[in-house]
Amino acid sequence: MATAGKVIKCKAAVAWEPNKPLVIEEIEVAPPQKNEIRIKVAASGMCHSDLYYLFEAKNSAGFPIVLGHEGAGVVESVGPGVTEFKPGDKVIPLGAYRCGECRLCKNPETNMCEKCWSNIESAQMSSSDTRFSCRGKPVLQFVGTSTFSEYTVLNQIAVTKIHPDARLDRVCLFACSFCTGYGAAVNTAKVQPGSVCAVFGMGAVGLAAVMGCKSAGASRIIAVDINEEKFEKAKIFGATDFVNPKAHQKPISEVLIEMTNGGVDYSLECVGDVTVMRSALESVVKGWGVAVIVGWNNVEDVSTRPVQLIAGRTLKGSMFGGYIGKESIPKLVLDHMAGRLNLDEFVTHTVKMDKINDVVELMKKGKCIRAIINISK
Amino acid sequence: MATAGKVIKCKAAVAWEPNKPLVIEEIEVAPPQKNEIRIKVAASGMCHSDLYYLFEAKNSAGFPIVLGHEGAGVVESVGPGVTEFKPGDKVIPLGAYRCGECRLCKNPETNMCEKCWSNIESAQMSSSDTRFSCRGKPVLQFVGTSTFSEYTVLNQIAVTKIHPDARLDRVCLFACSFCTGYGAAVNTAKVQPGSVCAVFGMGAVGLAAVMGCKSAGASRIIAVDINEEKFEKAKIFGATDFVNPKAHQKPISEVLIEMTNGGVDYSLECVGDVTVMRSALESVVKGWGVAVIVGWNNVEDVSTRPVQLIAGRTLKGSMFGGYIGKESIPKLVLDHMAGRLNLDEFVTHTVKMDKINDVVELMKKGKCIRAIINISK
Repeated sequence: MATAGKVIKCKAAVAWEPNKPLVIEEIEVAPPQKNEIRIKVAASGMCHSDLYYLFEAKNSAGFPIVLGHEGAGVVESVGPGVTEFKPGDKVIPLGAYRCGECRLCKNPETNMCEKCWSNIESAQMSSSDTRFSCRGKPVLQFVGTSTFSEYTVLNQIAVTKIHPDARLDRVCLFACSFCTGYGAAVNTAKVQPGSVCAVFGMGAVGLAAVMGCKSAGASRIIAVDINEEKFEKAKIFGATDFVNPKAHQKPISEVLIEMTNGGVDYSLECVGDVTVMRSALESVVKGWGVAVIVGWNNVEDVSTRPVQLIAGRTLKGSMFGGYIGKESIPKLVLDHMAGRLNLDEFVTHTVKMDKINDVVELMKKGKCIRAIINISK
Repeated sequence: MATAGKVIKCKAAVAWEPNKPLVIEEIEVAPPQKNEIRIKVAASGMCHSDLYYLFEAKNSAGFPIVLGHEGAGVVESVGPGVTEFKPGDKVIPLGAYRCGECRLCKNPETNMCEKCWSNIESAQMSSSDTRFSCRGKPVLQFVGTSTFSEYTVLNQIAVTKIHPDARLDRVCLFACSFCTGYGAAVNTAKVQPGSVCAVFGMGAVGLAAVMGCKSAGASRIIAVDINEEKFEKAKIFGATDFVNPKAHQKPISEVLIEMTNGGVDYSLECVGDVTVMRSALESVVKGWGVAVIVGWNNVEDVSTRPVQLIAGRTLKGSMFGGYIGKESIPKLVLDHMAGRLNLDEFVTHTVKMDKINDVVELMKKGKCIRAIINISK
């Protein structure tokens, strides 16, 4: 392409500082370096992790930054050493990648990677390395992906190639919310046929978890949310029971234990709230119940009485639903193309990038599941 | 027997109130009622759970009581409806039994029982029903077993019959400490061959956990204790590395992570301290590490950052090592008789019942692993 090897000037939504609206700016995107590829982003969802960084993490050293980690696009150019990708390939940038060299990457039973995790955890999801600049200042890349930019640059280990006929404004959801929720049910909890499940939080991740429970053959799926407007959607995804904790005097764990003769087999916390995590754990049945923490939280502690665990409960966590994105997303894309995975129901809004702050407000008010942001024309 | 159907007067160590020495008293033991059996206790270990009740639980309504739950004896007489046992059978009383009728008991994958658990948890390990009295007052039976008495009475569901040649002053250890620790490793953690384990706390339960890790084929077993005198014993049981947290400036989890290139595969907390539980969890490797809470604690919360779990760690708990005592203990007794399970190394002291308060002092000072108390002549 004519742009290969050159700096690209393009539009991006820059977060200059915490707690302020994003600003559509012209940024400069450097050419890909060794083993890197530059991607023209077609579409991106916005995730609560983006908002968490903007509003909760409060790490002013982590700004300015371009957020966005649920995107899909097309390879614009590749740097030296890249053989797996070529311009024109449809791809999905991965926030959760594998270096392939650490102790964790040697074990096919986990999707964790020491290098990836240290980027995700220690720097509040930012990286000090970036190919972006704006008004002469470096601009950070959120978990490397920065999909709220018309162009972005990633190492090839953090990109996966998908089918050329994939619909980018749908399969972008595989980059975060869908895999995180669906995989937590099928890969981490390993929901069994006939089991009873509870999913806490009916955002996109929670709805994907409901879908995962249904796909795994759960006989009963209890949707838990304080926003009852979400229950209509939850029903479409497969929820069979609906509980608003605020409608009960008792703790929600007691309500669920009574509803299920002793507790659910599996619970999935898709909120990121430590009180809800505790409720999720204490709602599962003694003996074999498994609770999975899906919602991100690294600023508070989750707690429980040890006897809750001694009674045979298990507390686990899940990152990206246990999926190894590079291998799994291309297969999920094929499942979507074959009509086996419904992504349309997640999409409640579609906007252009210049309306990105409207999406922030919709998310904060709980008025959308996923808004697809069309990033480039 | 001549005593069948009659009240038996015998010696027992009565705990009249919290925080006071036990008192050797003559108590009255009523005959077994329907489905019950009366047992002449031969020998009993003393466990930290006995001391926990005496010194920590501080529930004055739970006194007077006869403690002891690690005993073995011989059936003296049986009540109506008992067909499984006859006078003269060697038996082990079970603190953890199964009612056979609840949702939990229908699942062979767990050893939990709703009825048993509610006795254990809600009443600080006491039962309001008892066959004991002393000086005209009812005396409670600790977890039903009360093995610090020459005679005790249990429902037949809470007793298991063992081989007539079993050595009662050794196999009594199967009633608690051995199963709790060994089973936590082999049944709950499911330690795999070649794995790296850490065991926190080198009391009898922790040493049994070390033995379980070794039996499962662990390649490295790290013994963690602040009392270095325990390490000699730990080595005999199979520990390969020895760490005193007080000898390090860094948190013990960081020490273990450095020792093992990222964390141990399995950790077992055999102390009952919520700070140690957190360390145990945070010492396991991301991706697949499993931490098991073995030590009892129902008065404080265990806490961790959710990201510790999201990184792929699992936190479980174990009661009685996951063993269904009624089925498993007779097999373990055979293993002991065949020389496959060494119990002698646990026994550091042997005393008569009138010296039982000496055992309390030895335990409090960390000066014994197990003292075997010879209860009846």
